[in-house]
Amino acid sequence: MANSIWKSYPQLGKKLDLTTEYIHSMVQVNNLEISSMIVDLTSGGKMLRPAFFLLFSDFGEEKKKIEELLPLAASLEILHVATLVHDDVIDDSPLRRSQPTIHTKYGRRNAIYAGDYMFTLYFELISKNLESNTDILRNALSMKKILLGELDQMLINFNVNSTKEMYLKEISGKTAELFSLSATMGAIVSGGNQELIDRCKAIGYDIGMAFQIIDDILDFSSSAQIGKPVHEDLKNGVYSLPYILGLEDNNSKLVAILSKDKLNEDDDSQAANIVIEDGYLNQTKVIARQYTQHALNELDRLPNNMSRKVITAVVKKLVNRIS
Amino acid sequence: MANSIWKSYPQLGKKLDLTTEYIHSMVQVNNLEISSMIVDLTSGGKMLRPAFFLLFSDFGEEKKKIEELLPLAASLEILHVATLVHDDVIDDSPLRRSQPTIHTKYGRRNAIYAGDYMFTLYFELISKNLESNTDILRNALSMKKILLGELDQMLINFNVNSTKEMYLKEISGKTAELFSLSATMGAIVSGGNQELIDRCKAIGYDIGMAFQIIDDILDFSSSAQIGKPVHEDLKNGVYSLPYILGLEDNNSKLVAILSKDKLNEDDDSQAANIVIEDGYLNQTKVIARQYTQHALNELDRLPNNMSRKVITAVVKKLVNRIS
Repeated sequence: MANSIWKSYPQLGKKLDLTTEYIHSMVQVNNLEISSMIVDLTSGGKMLRPAFFLLFSDFGEEKKKIEELLPLAASLEILHVATLVHDDVIDDSPLRRSQPTIHTKYGRRNAIYAGDYMFTLYFELISKNLESNTDILRNALSMKKILLGELDQMLINFNVNSTKEMYLKEISGKTAELFSLSATMGAIVSGGNQELIDRCKAIGYDIGMAFQIIDDILDFSSSAQIGKPVHEDLKNGVYSLPYILGLEDNNSKLVAILSKDKLNEDDDSQAANIVIEDGYLNQTKVIARQYTQHALNELDRLPNNMSRKVITAVVKKLVNRIS
Repeated sequence: MANSIWKSYPQLGKKLDLTTEYIHSMVQVNNLEISSMIVDLTSGGKMLRPAFFLLFSDFGEEKKKIEELLPLAASLEILHVATLVHDDVIDDSPLRRSQPTIHTKYGRRNAIYAGDYMFTLYFELISKNLESNTDILRNALSMKKILLGELDQMLINFNVNSTKEMYLKEISGKTAELFSLSATMGAIVSGGNQELIDRCKAIGYDIGMAFQIIDDILDFSSSAQIGKPVHEDLKNGVYSLPYILGLEDNNSKLVAILSKDKLNEDDDSQAANIVIEDGYLNQTKVIARQYTQHALNELDRLPNNMSRKVITAVVKKLVNRIS
């Protein structure tokens, strides 16, 4: 059953359940262990990307049947999960959504190939009905930007000279492009004109940026809520925006801690305190609110229907988590 | 400059050099280390897949200019290299073509993302001129079969009940599909009719099967020639066809050795001796020759031109390595 965040929107929840069923029907791997692993991975998530795609497919002139939307909705979740699986192998993360990660349970080999297999499924799904869908495919290749975002992340890791600009560029690839793609595909598939497509693309992008920054902010709350150790990223040299704002500000206490060869628990909590007390966390909240506000302004210019109401409510709920 | 195996075919060698240049012009990663790593990876290889693609594009009615062929030729090498990089991470192989592997030099993180990035480049390249190329894209998705081959390989690893059938299915995905794709794309892009396309597909497939089996056979020659430790695969539980034929024959000496928990150098050479002395290596040669003979028979039915002569010569040279 669809994740509980959609319980106020039963119609959408039902479509997301169909998307999950569709994904599971597509997974055809002889190796039972691998196929059940992919089924696990694509069950019970928030399904944000297919949800946004389905919602944004309500703004063009053409009303598509759910059967026509399922392959694209499924493809976006599959691409997302594929990148998560590879990320977890790379970071050697033990947990994801409070559960053991795939490579911990099934080994690195299976995890890497499963991710590769899902990349292929993604392309297979977006290539369906190709003749009518060349625009979709062109946009789908923004997957490249997503991977380039991951590669750019390495320029930030363990780099105390990281800048806000570098950070924003990195999360742009890592998160915002996929949200943007989901919204763009929705607009295209519903026969939207170029103005509508561009607006949906921008809204999706802003929501994605806000989503990632808010995720970074929530890392400063209790770990129990989000199911991973606090500041694990920090120890791996992955600096989130609150830290980067402090580094860019040449906060000498913060620079001293993060320049250490290896951080212990104490360094970790000291760095977090600096970020909170010296106002960098609040500055980050301001930036997140700028993105959501921009998204909300643009949303007001979309056709006024139920999907617009749902997206607006979801964006407001997102930003309320940090107020 | 193109690999020396093409020195007898300077025209083809020149086209392969252009393909390499084209690949390098496509690699646009901000991280200089990664981009030079991908450039390294796509330099100096045998370029068999682009070579077959270019050769097979000579059999249809339409003569394409090299500029039109480059994106597809490049895409095939990029896909091949992407799978190699991930394979090396998975097997934790220290060497490839006598050089340190990517993950050894640049770390697992870079290697996994570089592979992912190359998968995306592959799709980007095959999606060029999309309107006229929907058949190409459909076939390009046989990449899925390649990954399924890798996943199937896990069913064989450390499994003394592996069968010839399982092995052939696995290498079919791992190697033959990509050779087949190269030949198929050549036939399609040159405007070949369905009969020609099907014939090229079958020839590519048989060449790929022969290529992989002959590679397994050459593992029994000196290691110096091929740049990797002999029988490294065996210790990792990856059984090649000569061993599988022995296992299927219930060769009790061989089963006893391969059932051990950990193989030492001595087990390794004993197993190899059994495979040679009890005739399994020769049986494997017979199978390899069946595939090449079938390919040669079908080649005779293609238009009789210079490309047919080159492919025929290459196939004969390949099979001569085991005679």
